[in-house]
Amino acid sequence: MVDSLTDRTRVRRLSDKASYERSALDQLLDEALVAHVGIVDTDQPFVLPMGCARRGDDVILHGSSGSRLMRRLADGAAACATVTVLDGLVYARSAFESSMNYRSALILGCARGLHGDDELDALRTLSDQLLPGRWDDIRPPTTKERAATITVALPLEEWSMKVSTGAPEDDPDDLDTEPWRSIWAGHVPVHLARSNPIADDHVPTGVAAPSYLTHHRSRSANH
Amino acid sequence: MVDSLTDRTRVRRLSDKASYERSALDQLLDEALVAHVGIVDTDQPFVLPMGCARRGDDVILHGSSGSRLMRRLADGAAACATVTVLDGLVYARSAFESSMNYRSALILGCARGLHGDDELDALRTLSDQLLPGRWDDIRPPTTKERAATITVALPLEEWSMKVSTGAPEDDPDDLDTEPWRSIWAGHVPVHLARSNPIADDHVPTGVAAPSYLTHHRSRSANH
Repeated sequence: MVDSLTDRTRVRRLSDKASYERSALDQLLDEALVAHVGIVDTDQPFVLPMGCARRGDDVILHGSSGSRLMRRLADGAAACATVTVLDGLVYARSAFESSMNYRSALILGCARGLHGDDELDALRTLSDQLLPGRWDDIRPPTTKERAATITVALPLEEWSMKVSTGAPEDDPDDLDTEPWRSIWAGHVPVHLARSNPIADDHVPTGVAAPSYLTHHRSRSANH
Repeated sequence: MVDSLTDRTRVRRLSDKASYERSALDQLLDEALVAHVGIVDTDQPFVLPMGCARRGDDVILHGSSGSRLMRRLADGAAACATVTVLDGLVYARSAFESSMNYRSALILGCARGLHGDDELDALRTLSDQLLPGRWDDIRPPTTKERAATITVALPLEEWSMKVSTGAPEDDPDDLDTEPWRSIWAGHVPVHLARSNPIADDHVPTGVAAPSYLTHHRSRSANH
């Protein structure tokens, strides 16, 4: 998406890993659970992990209204949300080419605070991404709980993405030189795996875990 | 660790989740693979994912010497490295208490660039954390490769940590009120799982994956 390319987000290093397809960005954002959000406060950067979800052309984030950094975010301070999914470990023949496979998106911009029905819809979007199927079962937020929460939308306008996949990219010399040419090299895929649900002490006898926990959607189960 | 507490890193919100034990910080840093590092450039925060490892009282990070942000980091610009491990999904009875279990450390400070044997030792530390057992098998970095790499140490002096574990913390009213009291609630542990190693096309016939790939160390296998 050419619109997304500015001097600030153009990937200068490892540019063969740069990926600018909006569809790849959407796929990453629809799969990820956590964004690391950077905000500056008196010249010091702070990076906070937040649950995240995509809603159309925005990334939805939320946090406590008691947090000064969340209030700065909602006030439109310059922000950077970085979303990374680790896909594998790369065992090359040299230390230099040893690395990780990953997809990472860096989104720059100023968020806007959400309110009223728009905020409620955004909170549902977050729930649907992080805990698919859950929203219809649980108690919606009260007015007091809503007041304790800041929900913001960060637009997908200025962003870049880096993707690293598959086998090592070894130096051709290492493929011809002993002992390196004779060692095992390759990659090990990794993914976020879920264990069995653990009920808390208040669940009545006979109430089983709901189907959305026992039949994972592939999007969420694979990462 | 009281030394680590400053006004900038004291956890103001959800302070029951704040954890200040240095041993808990070390355990997280020894297990994590990725840090999200925030740096400011002309008032704009940038957050970059980087492989990370702990060496004593430092977090080791590295990147390309062609990256302006890496050069700023090595020059001692104010930085924030945030390390997060996702441990579970929390299915509460209300939207407000629905959340995730995680451990996250926020480390503020100024990194220092590493050089010579000290840098080589730090690169080995990174390799040992990200790819345990691999270093002795692979070609060490050349002088040219070393020049293309910036390796830094960020001291563990000013930091804070948040930890969320276990079952939902529901509002007591929800435990007594239908229909919420009758629904399933609890948590789903998650962990980073490894698939089988995939050899690249250059591995000679008969060369098997090394034992450090087929017998995971529990530290790395569990997260």
